Amino acid sequence: MQEIIKKQGVITIKADLGLIGLAVMGENLVLNMENHGFTVAVHNRTPEKIDQLLQGRGAGKNIIGAYTIEELASQLKTPRKVMLMVKAGEPVDLFIERLLEVLEPGDIIIDGGNSLYSDTIRRTKLLEDRGLFYVGAGVSGGEEGALTGPSIMPGGSKEAWPHIQTIFQAIAAQVDGEPCCEWIGSDGSGHYVKMVHNGIEYADMQLIGEAYFLMKHLLGFNAEEMQEVFEEWNQGELDSYLIEITGHILGKVDQDTGQPLLELVGDGAGQKGTGKWTSQEALDLGVAAPTIAEGVFARIISGAYDQRELAAKAFPFKTPQVDLDPAEFVEAVRQALFASKICAYSQGFDLLAQASKEYDWNLNLGEIAKLWRGGCIIRAQFLQHITDAYDQNPDLENLLLAPYFQETLKGNQESWRKVVALAVEQGLPVPGFASALAYFDSIRHPYLWTNLVQAQRDYFGAHTYSRRDRPGAFHTQWQLGDKVVTSDEV
Amino acid sequence: MQEIIKKQGVITIKADLGLIGLAVMGENLVLNMENHGFTVAVHNRTPEKIDQLLQGRGAGKNIIGAYTIEELASQLKTPRKVMLMVKAGEPVDLFIERLLEVLEPGDIIIDGGNSLYSDTIRRTKLLEDRGLFYVGAGVSGGEEGALTGPSIMPGGSKEAWPHIQTIFQAIAAQVDGEPCCEWIGSDGSGHYVKMVHNGIEYADMQLIGEAYFLMKHLLGFNAEEMQEVFEEWNQGELDSYLIEITGHILGKVDQDTGQPLLELVGDGAGQKGTGKWTSQEALDLGVAAPTIAEGVFARIISGAYDQRELAAKAFPFKTPQVDLDPAEFVEAVRQALFASKICAYSQGFDLLAQASKEYDWNLNLGEIAKLWRGGCIIRAQFLQHITDAYDQNPDLENLLLAPYFQETLKGNQESWRKVVALAVEQGLPVPGFASALAYFDSIRHPYLWTNLVQAQRDYFGAHTYSRRDRPGAFHTQWQLGDKVVTSDEV
Repeated sequence: MQEIIKKQGVITIKADLGLIGLAVMGENLVLNMENHGFTVAVHNRTPEKIDQLLQGRGAGKNIIGAYTIEELASQLKTPRKVMLMVKAGEPVDLFIERLLEVLEPGDIIIDGGNSLYSDTIRRTKLLEDRGLFYVGAGVSGGEEGALTGPSIMPGGSKEAWPHIQTIFQAIAAQVDGEPCCEWIGSDGSGHYVKMVHNGIEYADMQLIGEAYFLMKHLLGFNAEEMQEVFEEWNQGELDSYLIEITGHILGKVDQDTGQPLLELVGDGAGQKGTGKWTSQEALDLGVAAPTIAEGVFARIISGAYDQRELAAKAFPFKTPQVDLDPAEFVEAVRQALFASKICAYSQGFDLLAQASKEYDWNLNLGEIAKLWRGGCIIRAQFLQHITDAYDQNPDLENLLLAPYFQETLKGNQESWRKVVALAVEQGLPVPGFASALAYFDSIRHPYLWTNLVQAQRDYFGAHTYSRRDRPGAFHTQWQLGDKVVTSDEV
Repeated sequence: MQEIIKKQGVITIKADLGLIGLAVMGENLVLNMENHGFTVAVHNRTPEKIDQLLQGRGAGKNIIGAYTIEELASQLKTPRKVMLMVKAGEPVDLFIERLLEVLEPGDIIIDGGNSLYSDTIRRTKLLEDRGLFYVGAGVSGGEEGALTGPSIMPGGSKEAWPHIQTIFQAIAAQVDGEPCCEWIGSDGSGHYVKMVHNGIEYADMQLIGEAYFLMKHLLGFNAEEMQEVFEEWNQGELDSYLIEITGHILGKVDQDTGQPLLELVGDGAGQKGTGKWTSQEALDLGVAAPTIAEGVFARIISGAYDQRELAAKAFPFKTPQVDLDPAEFVEAVRQALFASKICAYSQGFDLLAQASKEYDWNLNLGEIAKLWRGGCIIRAQFLQHITDAYDQNPDLENLLLAPYFQETLKGNQESWRKVVALAVEQGLPVPGFASALAYFDSIRHPYLWTNLVQAQRDYFGAHTYSRRDRPGAFHTQWQLGDKVVTSDEV
């Protein structure tokens, strides 16, 4: 794949792709590409990082240093392909601006960061208006995935795809011989899908956290015992990267103290915005994603140290006194976790379905689940069931309704309720489990309390209401003293 | 208050204020002002509404019709005060544009709609740059409040306040001799406070809905029995407008069918954006407001008819079979409702506190609670306790910690847990109650599950973690096969 050019006797090797931003994700992507036979030109705002790479992990490899943007452009095969692995937000715009000075029509800029999809929509238009192509590619898998095979979700200028497909599909994770990288759709769709992936990841991590928390407090399990549980769970339908690493984490002992390291880790959880965006977007599109939002709020609460310290003193937590059969309870928690997980994924896929309509992306939901089977943080065998569900019924209204998930929810319902009820009684917060259960119970209830909400809204704001027994919009003078009132069609 | 001008022998009465937008809220505000001795000039996009008012409810009153914006400007005392009661969004900008053609420096535009606070920030700057003043005034109380005394939350150009204070405080609701209208702060603060008011209102309505739902399904109460419960609750610490109107609503019988009207009302709940904005803003500012968000998501679910119909068939709801002491359970629900309500208000006030810092508004939280004691939808005696809490400690970290609320939560905790656990076991969704309880239990727990979240984030993304036993940021190579690992300060 090397294009060798002779110029004044000097042999110049042109690179297949240029990458800007040599933080850990960027550097690992470069090494992954090089490892698959591609030559990569690299640039970084601070040049020291370039030297470090060239003299360190990239020494002797087909990696070319570019100390200026101009140099970078000159080192690339045409059409030039430049991938940005920089902080989302202003840095992306600044590099695009600089790149536009040196690139030509037909060239391609790829943003591999966690950019907000609406920024990607705007940037795609900007580049296409100038005859260039833009790709917003969600890249998941963390630093390890970047090196060994991430899940990649590219969207934007469709014209760019044939030029980057070979590289991206080569470096992506492979599952059953298929790369975890496929074209998603136009403009911001790739980043959107990655955003929802992360939103689901927030919920997934939250739910696993609650499972761990319940075993710790209600069974008094130590880290080692819980490690065994997670290892066992990872053999069954919960088989997934996050369950696997939870087992690893629980198994680690701190060198300094000899304690399980996890129990020494501070509980203030950070976040970087994609879970928040997913929740906000769900609210904007009118999609119920309460379990994802609870995952974000839980992290927020965990970091409110001042409030927590005072509240812990004011309302002391009493050590639960329960007598449970450990094996039975572990299985009940597993069932609750799996049922809650199904609800979290239902919410995420419902959001994708709605976004697909809203933004005219024509998303292939089954294909997206497939891309997530490998490489990314939420990778799991479980995702095959989602692909199957959409294969069987591309217009599936909600994942809960797919045969496999229906059966699972029916089977797990009782344990799920028992676990949540017990946690609630014992003062153990389970916002994820409880919110998922409320979501399930709300969706399946034939007549919710929201008739009262509508009556109240009509009472104080004349917003009108519908009737169950006839079509139309109605208004009532609820304020009247009369017991018998009219329901007037308006 | 009439300024009479003789011009060519004709006596012209100049108006104290001009109001644009004669939908029900606007019209009622006009009548309210007129009733308090002010002369109001009125304009509407469709002139028929002006004639209707002048010939109908406004006949013989000090209300002047203005059929053009120019006419409106000519009818007003200077500095001119023009209040917009039009749909939030573009209509506000369009009228501002038109008004800027006819108004002069020193004149005042007031937006009394539910505008997004960031629009109000932008508009305040626009007007101030041109020498005029802008006020974004949250107005709550629905159509009845507008007529008889709303709660008004004005913010924006402070210079405008002396010119509008008399009118606004005269028409506002009065509680204990004090008007439910006070200056909030600069630029978008008035609309922000109104937005959070509405967010709390979403949660409050949701929680009342759940209380009704539980009595209906677990006690089998009919509408009349529940009416009695709400009437009784309205005599105690739950005393509030929303509880009062719920009683009224439950008492109504449909003329056509002879059935309780509420049970005929469709359960697809509408929303107009302020609850959504509050949730999104909480996410942006990093404030936990899960109970408000659950209120919004619950309305969203209620309107997802297609999904609900299929889910109701797939997962049939079984009529609960429980044997409860009705009086005891009603009291338990009351306690759960009140405890949940405290959490919802804590979330709303926490958001206000954070916004005050973020936007430099210097909000007086106790004063804001006072403004809500009358006129608005969430009016309640309960709010006096919030005012007292901030009077006692203006830097209160969270409402839960104020002595009165602490005591209440401690007293209600057991019932609250029982009610949520029972609902969960019986398949009745209580997203509001459950989320409020999870919020409470999360805030007061000394060590949450989020240590695992941080370990996971460090595992796959090298995000680092803190330790409980020493300061600093740490990273571990969790992936290693070794059982004993180092925790490296980075």
